[in-house]
Amino acid sequence: MNDPSDQPETEPAAKIDFAPRTSVEQVEEGHDLAPKFDSDGLIPCVTTDAANGEVLMLGYMNREALEKTILTGEAYYWSRSRQVLWHKGATSGLVQQVVEIRIDDDQDAIWLRVHIQAGAHSDPASCHVGYRSCFYRAVELKTGRIGFAEKEKTFDPEVVYRDTPNPTVL
Amino acid sequence: MNDPSDQPETEPAAKIDFAPRTSVEQVEEGHDLAPKFDSDGLIPCVTTDAANGEVLMLGYMNREALEKTILTGEAYYWSRSRQVLWHKGATSGLVQQVVEIRIDDDQDAIWLRVHIQAGAHSDPASCHVGYRSCFYRAVELKTGRIGFAEKEKTFDPEVVYRDTPNPTVL
Repeated sequence: MNDPSDQPETEPAAKIDFAPRTSVEQVEEGHDLAPKFDSDGLIPCVTTDAANGEVLMLGYMNREALEKTILTGEAYYWSRSRQVLWHKGATSGLVQQVVEIRIDDDQDAIWLRVHIQAGAHSDPASCHVGYRSCFYRAVELKTGRIGFAEKEKTFDPEVVYRDTPNPTVL
Repeated sequence: MNDPSDQPETEPAAKIDFAPRTSVEQVEEGHDLAPKFDSDGLIPCVTTDAANGEVLMLGYMNREALEKTILTGEAYYWSRSRQVLWHKGATSGLVQQVVEIRIDDDQDAIWLRVHIQAGAHSDPASCHVGYRSCFYRAVELKTGRIGFAEKEKTFDPEVVYRDTPNPTVL
């Protein structure tokens, strides 16, 4: 992914320079953005609601998604199920405006704090099932039983997503 | 990982039954705990401070780590750098007491809300570099430049971790 010839020729304008990873000190204590993408070219991204700290989703970014997120201030991910660059909210209208981007100590994880625009049909939400957070269920300590932490969906996914295939993979 | 013979013979007592994944509806809307482990047998886990919603770290759990976390109420992870089960805080004293375990829509990510015990030498913290959160740096929009969101370390990692090797991998 670090080969300069990978840069798309059709968008030569703005780009973000990711630094090579040269030392533990540089990666942990430095000012160079030197993200570590995994063997699939992806870095995990935790996205929280800037208003209340709730974890909304855990997604993945490839190099292009991270670059577009930094440049545009809107959240882009790589959809592993559809294998495409994914501008969150393009279908649902629930675009994530980035308030802050954090990166972790060894630069192999991203944390986005976002503000969610409410779509035409719905309250602010981020989950394709219709809940506010993707993490709408809790696992009970000791037993492992699952209960619903969110009681009601904030939108009807059949209205918002219509013919879009469900991304959940068994 | 689903072979019953994988169960450790020395700890036959309590165990958590993970359900097989049989349908999208079961996984997304059901009460069965049916986590999806990746090809390395791992599931990513976002850990936040229950007191203020701050994202502390993004770790990984294998089947045993998730089971122990549910059964004990303390956070266990799988250390990818050391390739061992990792009881967070065993070295530093900064044990993570689990307040709530959430699981996401397609059950391929965990969210732990934790309370961190302060260690003998330190304030509550979670990062091996010495900061409160592993996400102590912010990436500037438009430019990609990195700045420090946390200005001071909460403990001295050379005192707390002594001879423990640094887990960061280039």
